Amino acid sequence: MTIGELQENGSFNGTYLTAVSMSPKKILKSPLLGFQHHTHQPTFGFTVKWTFTNTITVFTGQCFVDDEGKEVLKTMWLLRLDADSEKHNWNATLVGINIFTRLHSQKE
Amino acid sequence: MTIGELQENGSFNGTYLTAVSMSPKKILKSPLLGFQHHTHQPTFGFTVKWTFTNTITVFTGQCFVDDEGKEVLKTMWLLRLDADSEKHNWNATLVGINIFTRLHSQKE
Amino acid sequence: MTIGELQENGSFNGTYLTAVSMSPKKILKSPLLGFQHHTHQPTFGFTVKWTFTNTITVFTGQCFVDDEGKEVLKTMWLLRLDADSEKHNWNATLVGINIFTRLHSQKE
Amino acid sequence: MTIGELQENGSFNGTYLTAVSMSPKKILKSPLLGFQHHTHQPTFGFTVKWTFTNTITVFTGQCFVDDEGKEVLKTMWLLRLDADSEKHNWNATLVGINIFTRLHSQKE
Repeated sequence: MTIGELQENGSFNGTYLTAVSMSPKKILKSPLLGFQHHTHQPTFGFTVKWTFTNTITVFTGQCFVDDEGKEVLKTMWLLRLDADSEKHNWNATLVGINIFTRLHSQKE
Repeated sequence: MTIGELQENGSFNGTYLTAVSMSPKKILKSPLLGFQHHTHQPTFGFTVKWTFTNTITVFTGQCFVDDEGKEVLKTMWLLRLDADSEKHNWNATLVGINIFTRLHSQKE
Repeated sequence: MTIGELQENGSFNGTYLTAVSMSPKKILKSPLLGFQHHTHQPTFGFTVKWTFTNTITVFTGQCFVDDEGKEVLKTMWLLRLDADSEKHNWNATLVGINIFTRLHSQKE
Repeated sequence: MTIGELQENGSFNGTYLTAVSMSPKKILKSPLLGFQHHTHQPTFGFTVKWTFTNTITVFTGQCFVDDEGKEVLKTMWLLRLDADSEKHNWNATLVGINIFTRLHSQKE
């Protein structure tokens, strides 16, 4: 996951390259966009529009900073499948968690 | 919920005025942004950054169209609370559903 | 869904006949068991062991009583699929809601 | 968490002593009961009736066994709060995960 510059209104965008997929198609980088608050340990949320399937994932979580300044993003997500009709809506939402850490500590 | 113009890449933004809140503060219109697919009954996701609390909600769902062309948005959401520390992360995520219909449908 | 007699410790069992399934196999009545509190509008939870698939569903919710004494059970559920290995654990949990009302007012 | 003997029909009961709580009351051991399938890496579900609050938690997950025979229970849970009325039902369900391992594994 790569996140671009944070805008003044708290919005951000980026790209997401998932390691796992329910689709047999080739996994491709997919765009994401969302919001975060401007607090010390901000809550945030973002939407990923998968480019290789008709599904969507939304993540929400919080960025925690430990005593040594190390950041960890604790998130939960909903993965929305593409149902053929409203009758098949009932089993179209998966739920799970993801934990993200920085790949390269930044010099910002 | 008011949704603005859909962009070519599937992104959209808008505002959300919730009827319910866990916060004692006055409810205010809050910005949202997200993505949808370009399909007949598109899946979509969006993030709401509440302006009156430090919480975030992500919604994901699908727009279903019935035989008479009436649309209904079936969504599930995660509401992320602002935890004091990682130790309090465990009970910071609520889950629920929302069903949206058009306020002014095309001359019904 | 049929619920048997409530035990003194709040436990109950019963059977569940679902209208929908992800499995191609014939839907069969399945056993359930759970707990409820002894309050006016009790919270409760129960587990359904599907007899026709290797999946499990847990429901939790609350029994609300309106001004006319009519009961409604508002529940959320997690449906656990049978993953081949831990690597496939990430997409093995579905989430949704169910609303139950009494079929026949009881004479108990 | 202590689990008693597994019954032939897949049901089990036990007790749960949580490390965390949203209630200001003293945490007490609470009863649990549920079902599991009879497979190599069984899916399972169980309900915990908290004895010190009017809330309920349901867990569901799967027991994975790694190459060395070590077991891990990967679960997701819904925690149901006690809402005053149906109007407050919308924010009464929390979602999260728990990972359980054996306290005393077979002579590790």
